[in-house]
Amino acid sequence: MKKALGIDIGGTGIKIGIISALGNIIESTVIPHRVPSDPGRVVDDIARAVSLLEHTGNKNLKKTIRSAGVGVAGDIDQGRGVVRFSGNFGWKNVRLGEMLKAKLKLPVVVDNDANAASWGSYCIEFDRKVNNLICFTLGTGIGGGLILEKKLYRGSTGTAGELGHVTLYPGGIKCACGNRGCIERYVGAYDISAEVNKRIKAGQKTMIWKLAGGDPGMITPKLIHKAAQMGDRFAINTWKKAGENLGIVIASMINVLNPDIIVLAGGIAGAGEYIMKPIRETVRERSFESARGRVKITVSRLGSNLGLIGAGCLVLFN
Amino acid sequence: MKKALGIDIGGTGIKIGIISALGNIIESTVIPHRVPSDPGRVVDDIARAVSLLEHTGNKNLKKTIRSAGVGVAGDIDQGRGVVRFSGNFGWKNVRLGEMLKAKLKLPVVVDNDANAASWGSYCIEFDRKVNNLICFTLGTGIGGGLILEKKLYRGSTGTAGELGHVTLYPGGIKCACGNRGCIERYVGAYDISAEVNKRIKAGQKTMIWKLAGGDPGMITPKLIHKAAQMGDRFAINTWKKAGENLGIVIASMINVLNPDIIVLAGGIAGAGEYIMKPIRETVRERSFESARGRVKITVSRLGSNLGLIGAGCLVLFN
Repeated sequence: MKKALGIDIGGTGIKIGIISALGNIIESTVIPHRVPSDPGRVVDDIARAVSLLEHTGNKNLKKTIRSAGVGVAGDIDQGRGVVRFSGNFGWKNVRLGEMLKAKLKLPVVVDNDANAASWGSYCIEFDRKVNNLICFTLGTGIGGGLILEKKLYRGSTGTAGELGHVTLYPGGIKCACGNRGCIERYVGAYDISAEVNKRIKAGQKTMIWKLAGGDPGMITPKLIHKAAQMGDRFAINTWKKAGENLGIVIASMINVLNPDIIVLAGGIAGAGEYIMKPIRETVRERSFESARGRVKITVSRLGSNLGLIGAGCLVLFN
Repeated sequence: MKKALGIDIGGTGIKIGIISALGNIIESTVIPHRVPSDPGRVVDDIARAVSLLEHTGNKNLKKTIRSAGVGVAGDIDQGRGVVRFSGNFGWKNVRLGEMLKAKLKLPVVVDNDANAASWGSYCIEFDRKVNNLICFTLGTGIGGGLILEKKLYRGSTGTAGELGHVTLYPGGIKCACGNRGCIERYVGAYDISAEVNKRIKAGQKTMIWKLAGGDPGMITPKLIHKAAQMGDRFAINTWKKAGENLGIVIASMINVLNPDIIVLAGGIAGAGEYIMKPIRETVRERSFESARGRVKITVSRLGSNLGLIGAGCLVLFN
């Protein structure tokens, strides 16, 4: 059966896996990625890890790998396999596709990591059986991908799907993208944690502080989720507010794109019903009935593997 | 040369025209439409007007008409030619396609009026040479249409493109759609006029009041435009605010859909540079550089004929 390499290049680690056409991870590994990084060095590291990976499995494994799909957090020119810009990595106009192809001796497709995640969810979780799917990747930042009419929609310059930079509050918090009030500034993992910190400093009573051992750096969405599960009112309300904010943007996207499916992926989606319930309630209040009646809003069941599986799907399915 | 009937059913009048494949209106007429209306009566009126129209031109004209395209302000099931809902007309589940086909003895395609306008702009103004185009129809309400990868994108239930119901201010004005703070409530013709009226009542100095002859009912976007042209500061600021508000939503759509073209049509777009300049400035501040560098924001040059021409294009091009 056809298999592919999936390579998911993130800001702290690079996940590499051999992915089957059913979306299973046959073998996988993670190598560290210290950013800013040198692309040539990264490519060498990946090639070495791939070589090791191919030898851990059964001996015929290597022969079944026909191509490699790569997801990168950045602005990508998919056609040319170029990372136009990745602020986090310090990369500009890196010919990543070519470089990897030369080392791996395989055809390589490079795309934005959220595009890869969306395509993975569509191909594996939904078996390519829906027409229109929107995926929000809710991590440190918020990314997105659009599957429209069964195809990954990339827009005119490959930038489409920047769902984290839909304006939520026009006069709101300044964003690194230049805009003000982007949804990412309210529901990004970093921003939720920072807001909780700020509120605690201002005297907010919550068990989060104790759970974090009084260390602001320990306040993460995971910890806030834990506090919510323990009944902490402030933690519950933090997720409620996040869900309402996200629900406003999701409702707008339902009115504009009228999808079958909205998938939420990434760490923030791990808050489960604490965030899903207010999302659904907000969408019910704010979106068109005919569109809302069709759409299903769901959390990806592929969890933290979605990016890796999605990278493989970039070349397994087209 | 191939020709088609274009039928644009609006809330005060029905425009009917014979449209050439170059987008020219060969013959046209307008019949009144008093809403709420009886669909059977409307279909009879249209059939009568079409019959008259076919006889005003040269005798061979009728033979060259192969089909009819219809644009309707409402929620449309394009596949079945059914107007699922048009609040303004008082229509619910009207099999308009079938009814018109029986009377006109022609194949009929029915779509949302903003979809028709978008398709018309794409086919005629841009000669189908761009990939991705977003059209905002700025009238009493705000509609929209999306041409993605050279196709009219209708979404999963035909509702896609409701750009007037993207949330601008989450805590803002209640909208008839159920949401709060829809862009339509800030840049719709009715809402701009109502806001100006309110401000005048609250003591705002402006020549608009004199131009309107002291009649609130005479305050229209056209009149506000005229006052702006005469140098009225309040009128100029009214358009500036409208442009900034619209620019916020346009910037979000650029980040999400990364189009080649954004076309503005309808009466509000008639305010020209008074609204276009703040739109461009806002988009520059609020959208992603790579996407913004590509997109061209323009006013449709087909003016008030766009809806009619677009209706014809629904069947002239596919």
